[in-house]
Amino acid sequence: MVGKVIIAGGGPGDEGLLTLRCIEALKMADVIIYDRLIPKSALRYARSDARLIYAGKEPGRHVMEEDEIIRIMINEGSNGKIVLRLHGGDAFLFGRGFEECTAVLNEGIPCEVIPGVTSAIAVPEAYLIPPVLRGVSSSVAIVTGVEDPRKGRSFVNFRELAKAVNTIVVLMGASRINEIARELIEGGINPNTYVAIITRAFMKNSKIIITTVTKLATGQVNAENPSVIVIGDVVREGLKAMKAVGTNFELNV
Amino acid sequence: MVGKVIIAGGGPGDEGLLTLRCIEALKMADVIIYDRLIPKSALRYARSDARLIYAGKEPGRHVMEEDEIIRIMINEGSNGKIVLRLHGGDAFLFGRGFEECTAVLNEGIPCEVIPGVTSAIAVPEAYLIPPVLRGVSSSVAIVTGVEDPRKGRSFVNFRELAKAVNTIVVLMGASRINEIARELIEGGINPNTYVAIITRAFMKNSKIIITTVTKLATGQVNAENPSVIVIGDVVREGLKAMKAVGTNFELNV
Repeated sequence: MVGKVIIAGGGPGDEGLLTLRCIEALKMADVIIYDRLIPKSALRYARSDARLIYAGKEPGRHVMEEDEIIRIMINEGSNGKIVLRLHGGDAFLFGRGFEECTAVLNEGIPCEVIPGVTSAIAVPEAYLIPPVLRGVSSSVAIVTGVEDPRKGRSFVNFRELAKAVNTIVVLMGASRINEIARELIEGGINPNTYVAIITRAFMKNSKIIITTVTKLATGQVNAENPSVIVIGDVVREGLKAMKAVGTNFELNV
Repeated sequence: MVGKVIIAGGGPGDEGLLTLRCIEALKMADVIIYDRLIPKSALRYARSDARLIYAGKEPGRHVMEEDEIIRIMINEGSNGKIVLRLHGGDAFLFGRGFEECTAVLNEGIPCEVIPGVTSAIAVPEAYLIPPVLRGVSSSVAIVTGVEDPRKGRSFVNFRELAKAVNTIVVLMGASRINEIARELIEGGINPNTYVAIITRAFMKNSKIIITTVTKLATGQVNAENPSVIVIGDVVREGLKAMKAVGTNFELNV
């Protein structure tokens, strides 16, 4: 008997941002393969006899390779098991969920996808930074900050991006943010554009730094992993709101 | 006694994509101001004595003006009430949630924001179209298709956007998609780039059309409201997955 694979987004780290469908999947699954950045308490919904597999996914230090994850999904799914692959954030937004889904479907195993709350939007939002805002920004690009190993530079052409959208959200970009800032300046972005670096969102030791593209380009400010980085005039608007509610932030502009 | 305003995203229309925190807010609220595209069954979580206010928000036909919505939030919040402002999708991604939040904070009323599953990502995902994909797309722009009434053209510079990102998701762009496609071609996009038009997602009469930028630019294909429109090579990859699972789609390429 063939089982089923469920690929779900567990949201940005707050248990309250799990969806109903994700919780149903947690309760039902025989096997749960989970990432580092899921809400830690999410696993309390799992069956006591569920097999829990930690897949790691720290930058540069994967506990499990993607091939191995897919191999387990296929093996367990073909053996009649319900397999939940639980991603942080949304599974399709830089999560490899689509590759996992097609690999499973190619083996004739049913696959269900459950969208999640994406960190790219929810993390800035939790700090009252809007990705877009009437009169300030009508477009937001969500990009990876990871380097293309074949080219030795960003996958993303930040020079072209610099003036094409009003807001840029960079995921997985902390270690390369200084270089990215320089590429944006070469592309013509206003060097005084505000940047918010939100680190360890929804964790106890979360923090937010408000700075500028030029401070990053000149290495006066750095970023830690994991961070969601927002670049654009919306950050300035968010700063006003943060002051109104008394949020703690580090200002370096 | 001052109450509280909660601004929440209700997700793309599937009740199962409501978050736990959103459901808690629904159960608690004295007043619920809700949009057209929330999951219809969401209101069954509301208290039987809650005041339910429909805010409309159809393109070009708002039941309530934004000023009126904000006025009610402030009035009820200052009178000690818990007010839930429930948006479709996510409240900060073209939802005016940020403006509502700052207006409420400026009156000294506490405001809580609950991020939601955004339609911009979840709707394509439900059809197995990934916004980004290793080797195909490392950047996605989410933009409004609405026209800037001051300029008589798009708020967004689609000519600059055409080559700056790999995937473009257009919200509220159905009525202007032919013009947008022409702007993208002027900006240098490959005219044969695939486009997915997903209409009435998560409703019984939902549909998806797979077409190309050139078919839209020449008016051979049109789009209906409400639609999420995805432009980029990821659509071609999604098409393969849709075929594998037997999704119904209209192909016009």
